[in-house]
Amino acid sequence: MIMKSKIDCTWKQDMAFEAEVQGFKITMDTTSEFGGHETGPRPKPLLLVALAGCTGMDVIPLLKKMRVEPEGLKITVEGEPREEHPKYYHRIHVIYEFSGKGLDPEKLEKAVSLSRDRYCSVSAMLKMGAEMTYEIKILD
Amino acid sequence: MIMKSKIDCTWKQDMAFEAEVQGFKITMDTTSEFGGHETGPRPKPLLLVALAGCTGMDVIPLLKKMRVEPEGLKITVEGEPREEHPKYYHRIHVIYEFSGKGLDPEKLEKAVSLSRDRYCSVSAMLKMGAEMTYEIKILD
Repeated sequence: MIMKSKIDCTWKQDMAFEAEVQGFKITMDTTSEFGGHETGPRPKPLLLVALAGCTGMDVIPLLKKMRVEPEGLKITVEGEPREEHPKYYHRIHVIYEFSGKGLDPEKLEKAVSLSRDRYCSVSAMLKMGAEMTYEIKILD
Repeated sequence: MIMKSKIDCTWKQDMAFEAEVQGFKITMDTTSEFGGHETGPRPKPLLLVALAGCTGMDVIPLLKKMRVEPEGLKITVEGEPREEHPKYYHRIHVIYEFSGKGLDPEKLEKAVSLSRDRYCSVSAMLKMGAEMTYEIKILD
């Protein structure tokens, strides 16, 4: 059975919207330049948040199966929008920063590639419009 | 000048990740079936949240320029994932529910089309992989 997703988003005032997703509320807003009051993040960078969460939730269990247990993982995502409308991200760079002792770089690379090429549904959507690049860093 | 976006996302424990976007924090998690504890929304539906916020922030000011001032707007977005990996949304349905007296349906339709076809960067990205459908409701 396929589980559909459904979210609601209600206009609060000026440019502020409050979304409800699985019972959690997220306020979105924009800067004063566009009539907003910065009471929440802008919508577009949430695509990058979704990407980081999605690939992170692939990589951690994939590594666990390979018996690799990093102490920490920080994922940084940078998106560069087009200059013309619609100003979607046409370049996205993802940095995986693993910390821990004796981490096997090949296994980290393998987990990241499996997420990128096979499992991560958010990457799959965003890479249809964006050139995506990846980088792995290890802090020990 | 192009404003790049940058977000960070830190692994907290099990499947929970905490993202920071423009100073705001968003926790993502998953269900126990996948080793999570539901301390936040799953990452993929955040794409639908971003879509709702992005198109909402187009539609409200576009309507204002047309001297249409709805009392309320609720945007509902449904996403249907593919059955195979990567399980990205291949069908997305967006419902705009406007409330207010004497709203001109043609102007509402025009604002929604302008967002969909020209301005909304999140729609532009998601429609590369998803068949997108739209619906406008008016509650008066």
